[in-house]
Amino acid sequence: MASGDLDRLIQLLARLPGLGPRSARRAALHLLKKRESLMQPLGDAIAAAAQSVKNCSICGNLDSSDPCTICREVKRDPSVICVVTDVGDLWALERSVAFRGRYHVLGGSLSALDGVGPEQLNIASLIRRASDPAVKEIVLATGATVDGQTTAHYIADRLAELQVSVTRLAHGLPVGGELDYLDDGTLTAALKARRPL
Amino acid sequence: MASGDLDRLIQLLARLPGLGPRSARRAALHLLKKRESLMQPLGDAIAAAAQSVKNCSICGNLDSSDPCTICREVKRDPSVICVVTDVGDLWALERSVAFRGRYHVLGGSLSALDGVGPEQLNIASLIRRASDPAVKEIVLATGATVDGQTTAHYIADRLAELQVSVTRLAHGLPVGGELDYLDDGTLTAALKARRPL
Repeated sequence: MASGDLDRLIQLLARLPGLGPRSARRAALHLLKKRESLMQPLGDAIAAAAQSVKNCSICGNLDSSDPCTICREVKRDPSVICVVTDVGDLWALERSVAFRGRYHVLGGSLSALDGVGPEQLNIASLIRRASDPAVKEIVLATGATVDGQTTAHYIADRLAELQVSVTRLAHGLPVGGELDYLDDGTLTAALKARRPL
Repeated sequence: MASGDLDRLIQLLARLPGLGPRSARRAALHLLKKRESLMQPLGDAIAAAAQSVKNCSICGNLDSSDPCTICREVKRDPSVICVVTDVGDLWALERSVAFRGRYHVLGGSLSALDGVGPEQLNIASLIRRASDPAVKEIVLATGATVDGQTTAHYIADRLAELQVSVTRLAHGLPVGGELDYLDDGTLTAALKARRPL
């Protein structure tokens, strides 16, 4: 159908999440139409990021510098550490601008099915950071999935002996959400956690 | 939020068709997780394709070689040329394995709204190819859209004076399609073009 180089480009693009064979072909054609404005810059950006972007040795965030921008930011509260599953979750929290402490990226969830145990996650380094007397609170912001909650409970158990308070994100109605479309689990959690107005 | 190199990678990925800001972030994280197996090969493939893939000087197809693989294939019938709007359409026809002649890629449709006139498309080169006495038939395989049909009619007019028969793809029911879900235009076209069983 197409040439070797083009075939290879399409095959690799199709392995990106969100792209299948059809959209990978469209993406490859789009790139070839915008060689100067998109294709070459993208090739350069991939090479540059592959070279420079590394996991922060403190929190596990991805950044060109180590320690990362967030860990080096002096204005951030060093007494609160928010534990997230993945870098994408860290980014989501940063976009909300609701949290001004530090982060800790686990790099995954505990999962018996997938064979992910505590050693595969950045849990030892979290315990080390939480042992620092300057750290007062650990916010467990793992997902509300079975694996996420298992991970949160495991970490809470490990942190129990330390002088640090452990909290988790509230469960409840998503802002803008209608009751009619919500699942029973969320409704039950929201009702249990009801607060005086 | 993220570092300069990572931000730039996400911004460029978000400009691919089918990816938005959110899926571009997911794609960037996926790439960084698979540095050796996906990220570096993809960067190399983009650079290689940007360098080697060119439009065929005969038919306009994209290939690493010029003339392209299809134009060089001696087994293909040189007496039939299938005219398509874009390289993606050529690939779709090739996947169907239903056509074994040559192609001609217009590079777009005539569009008064977008200011695309005959000079912007590879129509002059098509007329030249169609003037070759070896060419017996031109199949117009432009889309069944207003612009596609306008383009087909314009080309048919230009080809009228040549000793070549001009055909177009049949309109009708898509194979596997149910009548109930079809638009009126397609139903009318299918009824008008009905054939004895």
